[in-house]
Amino acid sequence: MTEIRSRSGRRQNVPEPIRVTLWNEFVHERKDDSVRSIYPDGMHAVWEQALRTHLGDAVSVRTATLDQPGHGLGDGVLESTDVLFWWGHIAHGDVADEVAAAVADRVRRGMGLVALHSAHYSKVFKLLLGTTCSLRWRNQKDRELVWTVDPTHPVARGVPSPIVIPEQEMYGEFFDVPPPDDLVFISSFTGGEVFRGGCGWKRGFGRVFYFSPGDQEYPVYHHPDVQRVLANAALWVAPSDIRGKAYTADFSPTGWFE
Amino acid sequence: MTEIRSRSGRRQNVPEPIRVTLWNEFVHERKDDSVRSIYPDGMHAVWEQALRTHLGDAVSVRTATLDQPGHGLGDGVLESTDVLFWWGHIAHGDVADEVAAAVADRVRRGMGLVALHSAHYSKVFKLLLGTTCSLRWRNQKDRELVWTVDPTHPVARGVPSPIVIPEQEMYGEFFDVPPPDDLVFISSFTGGEVFRGGCGWKRGFGRVFYFSPGDQEYPVYHHPDVQRVLANAALWVAPSDIRGKAYTADFSPTGWFE
Amino acid sequence: MTEIRSRSGRRQNVPEPIRVTLWNEFVHERKDDSVRSIYPDGMHAVWEQALRTHLGDAVSVRTATLDQPGHGLGDGVLESTDVLFWWGHIAHGDVADEVAAAVADRVRRGMGLVALHSAHYSKVFKLLLGTTCSLRWRNQKDRELVWTVDPTHPVARGVPSPIVIPEQEMYGEFFDVPPPDDLVFISSFTGGEVFRGGCGWKRGFGRVFYFSPGDQEYPVYHHPDVQRVLANAALWVAPSDIRGKAYTADFSPTGWFE
Amino acid sequence: MTEIRSRSGRRQNVPEPIRVTLWNEFVHERKDDSVRSIYPDGMHAVWEQALRTHLGDAVSVRTATLDQPGHGLGDGVLESTDVLFWWGHIAHGDVADEVAAAVADRVRRGMGLVALHSAHYSKVFKLLLGTTCSLRWRNQKDRELVWTVDPTHPVARGVPSPIVIPEQEMYGEFFDVPPPDDLVFISSFTGGEVFRGGCGWKRGFGRVFYFSPGDQEYPVYHHPDVQRVLANAALWVAPSDIRGKAYTADFSPTGWFE
Repeated sequence: MTEIRSRSGRRQNVPEPIRVTLWNEFVHERKDDSVRSIYPDGMHAVWEQALRTHLGDAVSVRTATLDQPGHGLGDGVLESTDVLFWWGHIAHGDVADEVAAAVADRVRRGMGLVALHSAHYSKVFKLLLGTTCSLRWRNQKDRELVWTVDPTHPVARGVPSPIVIPEQEMYGEFFDVPPPDDLVFISSFTGGEVFRGGCGWKRGFGRVFYFSPGDQEYPVYHHPDVQRVLANAALWVAPSDIRGKAYTADFSPTGWFE
Repeated sequence: MTEIRSRSGRRQNVPEPIRVTLWNEFVHERKDDSVRSIYPDGMHAVWEQALRTHLGDAVSVRTATLDQPGHGLGDGVLESTDVLFWWGHIAHGDVADEVAAAVADRVRRGMGLVALHSAHYSKVFKLLLGTTCSLRWRNQKDRELVWTVDPTHPVARGVPSPIVIPEQEMYGEFFDVPPPDDLVFISSFTGGEVFRGGCGWKRGFGRVFYFSPGDQEYPVYHHPDVQRVLANAALWVAPSDIRGKAYTADFSPTGWFE
Repeated sequence: MTEIRSRSGRRQNVPEPIRVTLWNEFVHERKDDSVRSIYPDGMHAVWEQALRTHLGDAVSVRTATLDQPGHGLGDGVLESTDVLFWWGHIAHGDVADEVAAAVADRVRRGMGLVALHSAHYSKVFKLLLGTTCSLRWRNQKDRELVWTVDPTHPVARGVPSPIVIPEQEMYGEFFDVPPPDDLVFISSFTGGEVFRGGCGWKRGFGRVFYFSPGDQEYPVYHHPDVQRVLANAALWVAPSDIRGKAYTADFSPTGWFE
Repeated sequence: MTEIRSRSGRRQNVPEPIRVTLWNEFVHERKDDSVRSIYPDGMHAVWEQALRTHLGDAVSVRTATLDQPGHGLGDGVLESTDVLFWWGHIAHGDVADEVAAAVADRVRRGMGLVALHSAHYSKVFKLLLGTTCSLRWRNQKDRELVWTVDPTHPVARGVPSPIVIPEQEMYGEFFDVPPPDDLVFISSFTGGEVFRGGCGWKRGFGRVFYFSPGDQEYPVYHHPDVQRVLANAALWVAPSDIRGKAYTADFSPTGWFE
């Protein structure tokens, strides 16, 4: 039995760890000096530290990257994953269609997905949302303010409104996604743009949370409030024991439920 | 038979005019020189001109004000109103409870309501939404940018994204309203705040649209894009022929529909 | 520290009990023999047993009834309540307006509300929803089937779809409520009617869940699946530590968050 | 300029016809005697008659079928279509992936889609919704009652609640689709099942409406109320002049809107 410490110091015990897999494209950190200086061990190393800080032994964490066989998601990894994080940018096209389809299928059967920043254009995210997921952008050190518009939503727990991110890439509307089932955060930028940057959707027995802060050129994932959001999002998309049930798409004779 | 001209020059004929009543508190314009200089005939005069410009004879327009008997809404005015605009600020408390209740009841039976700016704190709006409708504010000439986040919504028709309003009062989140059924516009301000400033809700057989720009100290209602939104909102909340039907809250014996 | 046992046998520890107050009109059980035979100690006694069965010491439970001073909700009871259940029917009009307003205000500040069956017409429910809450009805022993349409929603946890209730009052559409933020259950009846009988709404920092089964003439609250829904609903509307914060409806100078 | 006659006899003029393409798999009508006897000229012939009855010259109607080159949707047909109807069942797998992708792309750019009955399992529908779209079923002559739960929605205009369909295939929950943006109709069946059979979603600049009645073994599309729904749905998904704009997914320098 493991333990979650909430910010208030309260402890909550959970029966078994949530099995998290952190998927990172892991290209920029290897080839761009500017990015490596911020994330010498990859962005996923910082996400893992964030989850450990806030969730402790309530999570078990693995990492998978693009360059591994099957992008690190084969051999039963997906089936033994409760929550998958996804970050990609310049190599979306290198993700095999079969892997993207397998991830989307696993979400529909109950796995949670936390899609980060430029993952809005990933194959996985577009397969699940059904839209182009396009947006405006400008990478010129805008300040980003992340405002909570749903203060009782679990993903907003324990974070100030606004979260102040000194420098970030601007992502602006129109963000071509389906109207979110849960709209939690709206960002504004120095240039005046706004963006629905914290959104939840249901897909089958799974949940998807998209969180827009996190361009590789800025130390966004080192920000303590952003780290809290990552942990909150992991908990929110994690399947309960009622998810993962088989779909019932069968012939159902009259009175089958009696 | 009257005619609506859309921006593209197309004409649409409608069988009978939409009966609009413009309700204005009409206090600031009479006592504050700064406001009177912007709206010498009252804000409602500018709204009427906006509706005439965009909707022509497709609307018939009346005005009602706080100081009139029954606040100008008695003697059958409500029952013969399809769309009611509402603006109030310093005299919310002077609106009789019975009148506020009658307006809310009329909305539930199919009348459309367009609530403007500080009407977020009006008795009518709070009765219909069920929340405190509180928000942050600052009246210091922030620039307001009004971004469309639902580009195919009829209320966003023909307006640029963003609408640029050079000076306005800041209204900021958290805006304590129920999650809107339709979220059309999100504003940002010079100070970095964001606000869900264009929202639609269904209440019974009626519709409510709230549009936040419009502080009395600035010439916001003279802005051509704002005027277009006012006209769009009037059309969107206007009842169709299926609204205004009697509720069926009756005993219904088995097979009543056969 | 107290303990919640889930149906699967898992244990979850919670730091302090959720403080539940069960409000029951408690009129039918005293004057109608047919009702007393089903609920000799009042319906609230059965709700309490349901909460004890599923939530154990994770809840502390009090009861309040119409005939008590302040309807049992004065003297700090509301302020020390996390979750309020509400059942009323023939005496809605006897609930003092001030008490109804105080309950609604408390919900907006974070208390959860579980509104049961004929509470759809209670003053409290109508104040929070803003609509007439009218519906069709027929009390002729229809079988009610309660179908889950949001299988991962916490309120649907551990209940079969459908829940089969052999005899119940029919409640039918159109149910005049705002489109629910969460639509969890849809019921059908022997006569063919349907009803959105399990709905959640957010109001300020509080949550409301409405569950329609529960007419006083039938032993609905003795049904084990219905009891599970009552416990689930209590957990879902219970405030987290982030609720109950003060609203910020204040003047906010530029840069107040920096 | 063409004319729409509403049920009440009112006339509305529209500037140019809505260009409708009716896509029908058109397999059952050719090979099954039972189906041909109901739809000797194909189901699309009856849909066309329904649109003519209710919309007159306000629509221009073409037909496309699976067996045509490009499934009848090449050569500019998609680009010159405002509203596409889609019915498929036993030959979903025979629809070319490229055609399905092109249809989904066209919807995102503003074309409306009306998906009928077993089209819930079509490639096009699944691409746009992102889920499995699975459901329960039973083809044993259940009576279907179609209840309106959003009485002011344009698709419900002029139809009784319930629509009584004497015999139909049962479709039952859980229907694995994203929570609809608009939930208009809920059906119940003789066997007691319920189904969210009238749902709207937004996808990019386009709209999707799904309407579940319409199994090929029953004369459902001859039903006058069903025909009215088909016409209403065509109007509701039809693009306005603001749809079909190019997406803006570009670099946006600071102040681009000034």
